[in-house]
Amino acid sequence: MKRLKLLIAYDGTAYHGWQVQENGAGQATIQGELERAFARVLGRKIRVQGAGRTDAGVHAFGQCGHCDLEDDEWQPDWRRTLNALLPADIRVKAAEEAASGFHALKSGTGKTYVYSFWLEQGFLPPHLRHYVWSCGPLDAGLMREAARELTGSHDFASFQNAGTPVRDTTREIFAIDFQKAPAWAPYDGNMLRMSISGDGFLKQMARNMAGLLAMIGKGRLAPGKISDILAAADRRALPSPTAPAAGLSLLEVQYPGIHAFRSQGRGLG
Amino acid sequence: MKRLKLLIAYDGTAYHGWQVQENGAGQATIQGELERAFARVLGRKIRVQGAGRTDAGVHAFGQCGHCDLEDDEWQPDWRRTLNALLPADIRVKAAEEAASGFHALKSGTGKTYVYSFWLEQGFLPPHLRHYVWSCGPLDAGLMREAARELTGSHDFASFQNAGTPVRDTTREIFAIDFQKAPAWAPYDGNMLRMSISGDGFLKQMARNMAGLLAMIGKGRLAPGKISDILAAADRRALPSPTAPAAGLSLLEVQYPGIHAFRSQGRGLG
Repeated sequence: MKRLKLLIAYDGTAYHGWQVQENGAGQATIQGELERAFARVLGRKIRVQGAGRTDAGVHAFGQCGHCDLEDDEWQPDWRRTLNALLPADIRVKAAEEAASGFHALKSGTGKTYVYSFWLEQGFLPPHLRHYVWSCGPLDAGLMREAARELTGSHDFASFQNAGTPVRDTTREIFAIDFQKAPAWAPYDGNMLRMSISGDGFLKQMARNMAGLLAMIGKGRLAPGKISDILAAADRRALPSPTAPAAGLSLLEVQYPGIHAFRSQGRGLG
Repeated sequence: MKRLKLLIAYDGTAYHGWQVQENGAGQATIQGELERAFARVLGRKIRVQGAGRTDAGVHAFGQCGHCDLEDDEWQPDWRRTLNALLPADIRVKAAEEAASGFHALKSGTGKTYVYSFWLEQGFLPPHLRHYVWSCGPLDAGLMREAARELTGSHDFASFQNAGTPVRDTTREIFAIDFQKAPAWAPYDGNMLRMSISGDGFLKQMARNMAGLLAMIGKGRLAPGKISDILAAADRRALPSPTAPAAGLSLLEVQYPGIHAFRSQGRGLG
């Protein structure tokens, strides 16, 4: 038995998220497309374990996954084999034999998401429509100030949407960074990107953080209110909507040295 | 009667080009979608005249158009009215009353196209798949050298595909410029953009120029061969394929002072 480790990029627009919906007959998912590609090669159904789920419409530059194969099922170039079978909006960036003990979900030590805000009032370039949240001007200074309140170890229960209850809602946010777009069309300074890295994310936590920070960036809430929201540990204490899925991308999954992908990208610049 | 002037952006992926195909029942086109939006407002069919046709799959940041309306048909905010009715992949950036004598096609003095080459071997970020030509590494220095041979007034018959014969195949190319992508994901230096401006373009001439320059950028043809290709004035003398439509965008249409859009973008950075 060999374990195959995968580094995967996808445009999530057409998919009902990462995870196969057991009751969702006919709903395409990233995991489902990957498993279908393997089934065509192997003639049997296998499970592809992801580093985490992404919601419907969320993208990935560097999702990770693994699956187990019999020795005689091994292909010389899994990346090429899978890319020949996958739809064009899902691409395997790297595929290699996993080091002993590697598990895409359990070995992960952190994740980095990127959220893209489109700042131009009244106009969104059509070919960015699936990849940003068009929310008008934002004050990045206020958002930076607010982001400091969210960094560190906190109970993020106020940032968790209903659906998958977890016992412990404490997570550590390692860093939140902001980057304005360069003078390169169609961005031309009109996009603000926020990267959020942490040891784990509750259900729609990254999108709830983006929603709150946008509200603060619009001047509709003071950054100082964040400590109260965290202290409430209740989603009803969060005054902002969950930000749209389209703006969110899973940039990378962090693994300790031996488990890291040799070819893993250096991220979003 | 009032003439309405339009500045239009579109993602051409889903369309059979700009122009309504009189025999193409059910084939969506940009012009057709615009005319359908007007018909819903006006209750009658009008013609939207474009500054030029774009091929199936070609995009636009700044296509121009015009149409004629009765005084009592005029809406206070045509941009908003049309955007509420158009599909999300076609956006009106500006709409204003045209100055006397303006004609979207006949008043134009030039056009600028942008062609996007993706240079990373073996991997194309999925969400760029409709907007670039994934052609691997290119030597921009060789392409710049070649581009100088194409600049100026030439008979471009060798760069014209069959379909719409024109009497005079001489066109003036004002400038060809190259720009490497900034350190901003997903570009990260992996994209090369070429802008081509000229007083007019023959059928698929911009894509034929992109195809030839890519061949030169790959070192498969010397820049010095261009003069022979031009002199032949025959498409069969062009050794390269027509570059894919997805990489091409109509950046802007130039008009003399009074006819220019007040809100016309400054272009591709």
